[in-house]
Amino acid sequence: MSFNTFGKIFRFTTWGESHGPAIGCVVDGCPPNIPLSIKDIQIDMDRRRPGKSKFTSQRKESDKVEILSGVFQGKTTGTPISMIIYNKDAKSRDYETIKNKFRPGHADYTYFLKYGIRDYRGGGRQSARETASRVAAGAIAKTVLNKLIGKKFKVTGAVIQLGVLGCNKKNWNEKVIRKNPFFCPDKKSLKLWEKYLLAVRKAGSSCGAIIELRASGVPTGLGAPIYSKLDSDIASALMSINAVKGVNIGTGMSSAFLNGEGNSDEIRSIKGKVKFKSNNAGGILGGISSGQDIIASFAVKPTSSILNPRETINKTGRNTKISVRGRHDPCVGIRAVPIGEAMISCVLLDHYLMHKAQCG
Amino acid sequence: MSFNTFGKIFRFTTWGESHGPAIGCVVDGCPPNIPLSIKDIQIDMDRRRPGKSKFTSQRKESDKVEILSGVFQGKTTGTPISMIIYNKDAKSRDYETIKNKFRPGHADYTYFLKYGIRDYRGGGRQSARETASRVAAGAIAKTVLNKLIGKKFKVTGAVIQLGVLGCNKKNWNEKVIRKNPFFCPDKKSLKLWEKYLLAVRKAGSSCGAIIELRASGVPTGLGAPIYSKLDSDIASALMSINAVKGVNIGTGMSSAFLNGEGNSDEIRSIKGKVKFKSNNAGGILGGISSGQDIIASFAVKPTSSILNPRETINKTGRNTKISVRGRHDPCVGIRAVPIGEAMISCVLLDHYLMHKAQCG
Amino acid sequence: MSFNTFGKIFRFTTWGESHGPAIGCVVDGCPPNIPLSIKDIQIDMDRRRPGKSKFTSQRKESDKVEILSGVFQGKTTGTPISMIIYNKDAKSRDYETIKNKFRPGHADYTYFLKYGIRDYRGGGRQSARETASRVAAGAIAKTVLNKLIGKKFKVTGAVIQLGVLGCNKKNWNEKVIRKNPFFCPDKKSLKLWEKYLLAVRKAGSSCGAIIELRASGVPTGLGAPIYSKLDSDIASALMSINAVKGVNIGTGMSSAFLNGEGNSDEIRSIKGKVKFKSNNAGGILGGISSGQDIIASFAVKPTSSILNPRETINKTGRNTKISVRGRHDPCVGIRAVPIGEAMISCVLLDHYLMHKAQCG
Amino acid sequence: MSFNTFGKIFRFTTWGESHGPAIGCVVDGCPPNIPLSIKDIQIDMDRRRPGKSKFTSQRKESDKVEILSGVFQGKTTGTPISMIIYNKDAKSRDYETIKNKFRPGHADYTYFLKYGIRDYRGGGRQSARETASRVAAGAIAKTVLNKLIGKKFKVTGAVIQLGVLGCNKKNWNEKVIRKNPFFCPDKKSLKLWEKYLLAVRKAGSSCGAIIELRASGVPTGLGAPIYSKLDSDIASALMSINAVKGVNIGTGMSSAFLNGEGNSDEIRSIKGKVKFKSNNAGGILGGISSGQDIIASFAVKPTSSILNPRETINKTGRNTKISVRGRHDPCVGIRAVPIGEAMISCVLLDHYLMHKAQCG
Repeated sequence: MSFNTFGKIFRFTTWGESHGPAIGCVVDGCPPNIPLSIKDIQIDMDRRRPGKSKFTSQRKESDKVEILSGVFQGKTTGTPISMIIYNKDAKSRDYETIKNKFRPGHADYTYFLKYGIRDYRGGGRQSARETASRVAAGAIAKTVLNKLIGKKFKVTGAVIQLGVLGCNKKNWNEKVIRKNPFFCPDKKSLKLWEKYLLAVRKAGSSCGAIIELRASGVPTGLGAPIYSKLDSDIASALMSINAVKGVNIGTGMSSAFLNGEGNSDEIRSIKGKVKFKSNNAGGILGGISSGQDIIASFAVKPTSSILNPRETINKTGRNTKISVRGRHDPCVGIRAVPIGEAMISCVLLDHYLMHKAQCG
Repeated sequence: MSFNTFGKIFRFTTWGESHGPAIGCVVDGCPPNIPLSIKDIQIDMDRRRPGKSKFTSQRKESDKVEILSGVFQGKTTGTPISMIIYNKDAKSRDYETIKNKFRPGHADYTYFLKYGIRDYRGGGRQSARETASRVAAGAIAKTVLNKLIGKKFKVTGAVIQLGVLGCNKKNWNEKVIRKNPFFCPDKKSLKLWEKYLLAVRKAGSSCGAIIELRASGVPTGLGAPIYSKLDSDIASALMSINAVKGVNIGTGMSSAFLNGEGNSDEIRSIKGKVKFKSNNAGGILGGISSGQDIIASFAVKPTSSILNPRETINKTGRNTKISVRGRHDPCVGIRAVPIGEAMISCVLLDHYLMHKAQCG
Repeated sequence: MSFNTFGKIFRFTTWGESHGPAIGCVVDGCPPNIPLSIKDIQIDMDRRRPGKSKFTSQRKESDKVEILSGVFQGKTTGTPISMIIYNKDAKSRDYETIKNKFRPGHADYTYFLKYGIRDYRGGGRQSARETASRVAAGAIAKTVLNKLIGKKFKVTGAVIQLGVLGCNKKNWNEKVIRKNPFFCPDKKSLKLWEKYLLAVRKAGSSCGAIIELRASGVPTGLGAPIYSKLDSDIASALMSINAVKGVNIGTGMSSAFLNGEGNSDEIRSIKGKVKFKSNNAGGILGGISSGQDIIASFAVKPTSSILNPRETINKTGRNTKISVRGRHDPCVGIRAVPIGEAMISCVLLDHYLMHKAQCG
Repeated sequence: MSFNTFGKIFRFTTWGESHGPAIGCVVDGCPPNIPLSIKDIQIDMDRRRPGKSKFTSQRKESDKVEILSGVFQGKTTGTPISMIIYNKDAKSRDYETIKNKFRPGHADYTYFLKYGIRDYRGGGRQSARETASRVAAGAIAKTVLNKLIGKKFKVTGAVIQLGVLGCNKKNWNEKVIRKNPFFCPDKKSLKLWEKYLLAVRKAGSSCGAIIELRASGVPTGLGAPIYSKLDSDIASALMSINAVKGVNIGTGMSSAFLNGEGNSDEIRSIKGKVKFKSNNAGGILGGISSGQDIIASFAVKPTSSILNPRETINKTGRNTKISVRGRHDPCVGIRAVPIGEAMISCVLLDHYLMHKAQCG
């Protein structure tokens, strides 16, 4: 069972509500003797945190992580690493007007159906604030992977589709990704994206996004068929992120349109090195890493909390309307980039350890 | 850990290779006192088995299931249900010519990388033959769900895209699905699909497909946030099927293109019943079932085993070419319909039991 | 995998070191809508905490629990309950003299062998301080069980053997247990026990103990054969407590000496109620609860940290002697009573939920 | 969840009833490329099977194991190893007279309470016949351990207490164990034991036993604190064996009677090698292996199925008497020796792989 725990060997358990005193996570199964500092974690926290630009939620959270256990004299001890992040800028008052209504397209309704009780303040446990914990866990996973398999291991994510606007993936540039508030990889798309997102926000609406993740330097042989395939676990990991509705590995859904020749990534041996002529498989065959870059993408639906009024019902089942004020991201997909990176890093480390167990 | 075991409470473990003496699975955690006969299982087995039409593999397998345990006097006892299916028509000779080569796009290569050994005959454990076991487990899941929540529970799958050819989903007709070899829901597409697939096969090629699954009568409240969300588990389940490269829940990847208003499924109370004005969410909000139909779709890539020669390497790392003869499906996506139904049924039963445990 | 997580449906994950800033645990899978207050938890915390009498460690910890999540308006929400307990009276200096030596019989040595690093301050993660988290989780389990199955459910533990001194179990009196610092159930043994333990302590030595747990009001049918038998899970739970070396169910090890007639607990129907003529089975048959009281006992070895010098080696493998000063329990078994109660309560709630899932 | 599955990485799932067509198990997570033959397995099967002497059940089962998957050209492939053992000598008629009665001290009653249905023939799933599957899995574990850590790894079990009769453990001789039907390690006890057990049987009664297991050559560092401690997992494994009521690690329950000096296993460095002056800990400290021999013992209660009449109730709740004819072991503890060896071997391999994953 894994209600709030992710992973098999390298595992993390998250806890906390959007407007509670704090959120946090406990990372377990971490290899010992890995140098780890708060700085390693804070870098990614800062990439995810809200309030950094006019394109994300204006909630001001510094998202400072404190490590409470599992690290001694700058190194992991192999025991649980407990991390806590205090909530500093919760404004529960904003939620008073909607506390008895359900936002259409939001988990408001189903949490209430399931548990018969919910913390309505800031979305409670449903809030994407929970993902801060994932980013902290993911930063540890990256640090461990960089120690165990070297600096060649790298995960990069980018927004490749912002609502109706795509970008030219041929212009993929990691420096560009780091320097714009959209995590857009294509410099030429930036201006249009900016205008578009401001317009969406001004209109009291929101938009979706597609994020692509690329992991390079991944060893071959990771993935445990049949029901812990690397791609199954990536799909599960990405689909668990708030508002995600679709996951592709490599060519993904579009592979349906290809024929056998077009889809097969032909293999060549060039000067003793294995090279593939294409990467439709996204680096995974039969659920096992092939040595190519792992490519995964996922779609984030538009934010459900919008200003424009929508028809809904309230807790007593009566028809009503809802219009959500407060501080919401016009496109939650943007901040999903470091979250996606975190999740895939955790999956890769987990499978790295699993592979070592059975076949190492 | 769950190498070859799927599920949390209702669990099944599969075993067996394509050309070994038999394949099978052990179903555990099944509720007791559920009437269960071989017939309940064989119906779905027959929908998946090969050799039924000219559009699938010509391997002749009757896929007769034998129950070895866990059923007493026609009822489940709550103890493990072991099922065995003998392999009757394996032709290992067909694989002699490719036993030292890797099929591009196939798990041949990665199994060898991972384990340093592989049973090359018929793809060994990588073969889609393993999915017969899933269908057997899924048939039990359906039977249990129909007993526990009634006949209103139903799962239907269909191929909605065959290679480059779509169909009109507005013509979705379950009777049509049952009567054509493609599991196509739209009568008007049949002729074209038939011509197309024969041409693909004649050309020594293959094509991909998209399958859509619809589950109705699903209770509200199923799904265990955060890391056992109903949609995460469905994504994992479908992605674990051979050759699947993408999974959508509801509007899926396309939800990225919507705005907040378009995506939100507005809620109405009509004569005391909750109705949604649309179903972009695919019946799942925050990882929990909302009472709407669960809608999931997945893409199956084209069969890797094709007649047309492809460039590849052999076990010693030398460049070579490969051309695969033998009995292969020109579109493995077709037979994925009952497999997808089986997997989603198992996920739904598992979550039904989990929900009962925590909140029942 | 379950490094630092206990349980299947009702699960808790503990973290923290003896001399770190805090310890804590995250309880997951808790049923929603259960009234829960800090008071429910603090009662048991106070029974376990050190510094209460001259017979336990003089470390002064108030062990005040703070709930950080999962409870809203006085009720559980079904989401993770995170609890934190700050360490207030750590004296790491006491450990400076032994930081490079291994205490014979202590986990000092094996933690270092396993991880290649260890937090020596107060025993770090090996410290029995971790058990405070278990008691917090167990208090929640008891509260939930009392809500779900009623006040008839009760768990009581007592020390029935203190070093070489036994007691008369026929005098078992719960009021007595609550009022003496040894959790001894037999009033007549108190004086002797007091003299004995003071002598042990004065001698710079320590002693072991046996604790017996009795759970009444447990529903029939709990336990999931074969590998989640109720008694297997109780054995695992109790053996996981620091310094425990043996576990008995019912007559336990002594059942080896019985014959079939003596061991069989004959069954009678008396006025429509099932009665057993004895309870050698400790309330568990075939791993499933029979409706009788669940009886389990466990042995705690003597504290390894003693003043009397012992031969050992240091981190560089050289022979040396060790004499442990600082604040240690002369008999760690005493404070194991509320810990044992907590663990068995967690197992029982877990199995109650599991049984509901499959058979409810 | 782990109803009928044991283990974390090296896992096995058993299925089958005493009088069904067959029993079997699926071993998963086995390292690849390990030479494995039926002979490796059959040796242990023959040590457990009934009908070999007048001191065990007269049921004639050859217990021939067939491997259905997971082994290719004499080596493990890393995929599931499915094994089947056909039931050849079931005499269900013997059970007709007791099919509506419950044997006191037997799982008859609780299975019926739990599931509301049970296969009464030969005890169905409750039968110790299930343990044949464990022995098959354990034989694989031993083979893998001998390959991975060398021939120095060895597990030996013996009956050290037969009912009221002990033996002199100082006479422990492995050759003796192999040559007598009681697995008694002390040649001098044989005659008396033989007389005693024949008398027990003739009297229509049964007796209990204590089995001791010794594992040597176990690497240091195995065991994953806190809730997968090596001793917790051994306790759980042994307690899951039919009729087991107590488990000791090292000095076990008796460690309660020791003082700190007596219990501490002092450590010496002798010519660069670490030596312990005693082994009260049974080779496990803080849940982690110390490099000493692992010593565990467990008590098996007397067989519940005895000829002498006992008072009980029937399925309708009426008082009645029961006298069990048929072929039963007068002391089930005897055949528990290879089962205990199998279980501890599986735990050790599992922890070996787990340790490799996190710390290797």
